[in-house]
Amino acid sequence: MRIRSVTTTVIAVPDLPLRNVVGCHQPYALRTIIQLETDDGLVGLGEMPGGKRFQQELETAAAEVCGLDPFHLEQLRLRFADRPRILSAFEVPCLDIIGKATGRSVAEILGGPVRQRVPFSAYLFYKFATPDDWLETPVGQPKPTGPLGLFAWSDAVLTPEAMVAEAEQFVTRYGFRVLKLKGGVLSPELEVETLRLLRERFGPTVQLRIDPNGGWSVETAIRLAPVLEELGLEYYEDPVAGMDAMAEVARQTRLPLATNMCVTAFAHLPEAIAKRAVQIILADHHAWGGLRASVQLGWICDVFGLGLSQHSNTHLGISFAAMVHLAAALPQLTFASDTHYPWQEGWDIVNERFVFEDGAVTVPSGPGLGVTLNPDALAQLAAIAEAVSWEERDDRAIMRRWFPEWSPSYQPW
Amino acid sequence: MRIRSVTTTVIAVPDLPLRNVVGCHQPYALRTIIQLETDDGLVGLGEMPGGKRFQQELETAAAEVCGLDPFHLEQLRLRFADRPRILSAFEVPCLDIIGKATGRSVAEILGGPVRQRVPFSAYLFYKFATPDDWLETPVGQPKPTGPLGLFAWSDAVLTPEAMVAEAEQFVTRYGFRVLKLKGGVLSPELEVETLRLLRERFGPTVQLRIDPNGGWSVETAIRLAPVLEELGLEYYEDPVAGMDAMAEVARQTRLPLATNMCVTAFAHLPEAIAKRAVQIILADHHAWGGLRASVQLGWICDVFGLGLSQHSNTHLGISFAAMVHLAAALPQLTFASDTHYPWQEGWDIVNERFVFEDGAVTVPSGPGLGVTLNPDALAQLAAIAEAVSWEERDDRAIMRRWFPEWSPSYQPW
Repeated sequence: MRIRSVTTTVIAVPDLPLRNVVGCHQPYALRTIIQLETDDGLVGLGEMPGGKRFQQELETAAAEVCGLDPFHLEQLRLRFADRPRILSAFEVPCLDIIGKATGRSVAEILGGPVRQRVPFSAYLFYKFATPDDWLETPVGQPKPTGPLGLFAWSDAVLTPEAMVAEAEQFVTRYGFRVLKLKGGVLSPELEVETLRLLRERFGPTVQLRIDPNGGWSVETAIRLAPVLEELGLEYYEDPVAGMDAMAEVARQTRLPLATNMCVTAFAHLPEAIAKRAVQIILADHHAWGGLRASVQLGWICDVFGLGLSQHSNTHLGISFAAMVHLAAALPQLTFASDTHYPWQEGWDIVNERFVFEDGAVTVPSGPGLGVTLNPDALAQLAAIAEAVSWEERDDRAIMRRWFPEWSPSYQPW
Repeated sequence: MRIRSVTTTVIAVPDLPLRNVVGCHQPYALRTIIQLETDDGLVGLGEMPGGKRFQQELETAAAEVCGLDPFHLEQLRLRFADRPRILSAFEVPCLDIIGKATGRSVAEILGGPVRQRVPFSAYLFYKFATPDDWLETPVGQPKPTGPLGLFAWSDAVLTPEAMVAEAEQFVTRYGFRVLKLKGGVLSPELEVETLRLLRERFGPTVQLRIDPNGGWSVETAIRLAPVLEELGLEYYEDPVAGMDAMAEVARQTRLPLATNMCVTAFAHLPEAIAKRAVQIILADHHAWGGLRASVQLGWICDVFGLGLSQHSNTHLGISFAAMVHLAAALPQLTFASDTHYPWQEGWDIVNERFVFEDGAVTVPSGPGLGVTLNPDALAQLAAIAEAVSWEERDDRAIMRRWFPEWSPSYQPW
């Protein structure tokens, strides 16, 4: 069995004006869908962050993939050892193919499921009210017909009180028991106040996290740590930027520090371990070189006493399926994973949309990833991508709609 | 597909009086052969060191394995997380079954081969002359009919000059290009002299290693290091015993230190890395929890800048097949692996005996491990095991045949 062709499709996924430390989500998030086809007609699916520039890289790399046996993943890995995103883009479809060829789920190919239900966290964002013309460009695209969930919710969330209302939606609709607050947006004091209100509203049965995306100073992070300890934070994600700054904060709090910023590749692990800079790694198979690499990361975390969770970007059902299979096969993943999935409800490109119950989803039984492409939805979002003609994500530019002088820098506080 | 039954067979493999730091190999080495059968009739093979005591443990653990899907290796791993040898005993047959079920080799199940030929080192032992009555107990067993190779060689090898003759046999018969001297037997000075003669005889095209099995003092190991550096040793394996002693030697020589003694489990890695005690780990899938665990070890070595080789005990073709498939799938394995295989030539229990050319063997194409049991050979060696009725290996006891007062302790020198 050999890979015969690689097809890539850039899509633009409608999104809301969700705030973060560098700015705001754009009306559309760019994703690239990958389809590998083998000479015996099996098709493997993949989904990656990135638009035309990433697609270009993928198309160039495609020549190195055609002719390869999809089982020969180490050869694939060696070819793209210095390009983990390209590796991931091809590896997940190969695993989907292996699953289809053997009648097994991707979780089973990775070592077999150790859980059938995978818990996720509510990803709470401060956000602007959705402007009426938010999705105006491109015009003429039909809206999805299914439920739109959070996506239909156009109110601003820019105060602690409004965030409690947002959390209510997440808990009521999806049953999440872990609430992750994307921080670095309001002042640190207001964000801590937000967490205090969330704790007050939901009591001790939910877990709370905050992720200022490295936007706080070491002084601020250490000053606020005691309050966060008292609130019983599950973990403190990237309060500050950089390995040494994280290590400094880690020395001053008993809260475990999590990261998807200062440890984003295997090469960062030795320093992070030597400096005890972080206690929990947020795996991201898109960035770390795929699902097998993420399994390895789980073992490394085990050996060195680190915890493991999963990072998320705006994504649709193929990425989500991959995250779910990985989580099913990874005993080391004892923290609920992040996901943006509820924010895109109504827009998925797979026929088998995931449904949350009690904040968790069921692992698809496969074969492979257990999801199939909806060609109409794919064509619709590909047409939007063509129309918007953005090359890559830019959370800074869109902010000028609200703040004409916006020029963010890390560690504003 | 579910595992229906577990069959274990203890065999006694004829061996020669090979010397090491604690004593001498016994006339028979104990191995346990494992056969897992699934409800659809597939049989997976495994081979482990150990006799009746180990078999007893396996038989007790078998209840936890029956009913399991052989693809669900993480569940298997979690069940035996604190018993890596038991885990390995069951994991390799599961991989053999997965390979047979999918028509793929074990190397392909592990991620696919990155090499088709796997190099090994010549395992040079000082040895006693084989006494005439060496294999006398049990009597009445037919000898193998094929070539006996090194096994037929009954001369003593207890001087540097005799070791050069032994190495000649290895190089001539099998084409080995890496010569590993089992040390800790003669005085350290005589063993270094042995290496000098080997270098003189074979020139710079062979690699030399020495493994005193922790039998040297730190002072001796450091004192002899400059000569070994000058001889261009490939690596210096366990000259001393213990993590701190190894770290001390490592600080005093530019030779990379290898180990299968002070790092024999994942739990030892953090300390070894923090102390820079070793530079090369000798993986052993029998001891580390199987082939997937060994793949993980390879990645960890990669991340932390450690080298990787493979340790060996006296073994037959099932263990060897597993080592070869692992080596094929592990790009991190850049050193030739150890093997005792030539010492047992003529006695294998698999139909597909491995043949060395230029010191390397070809990776079996599978499916699974690509070897099948020879029931007659298995029965013959099982009958010997029954007759000798040893519970476990004891290299010390046999030494009293030559040295009635033998009472070895580590670090004699």
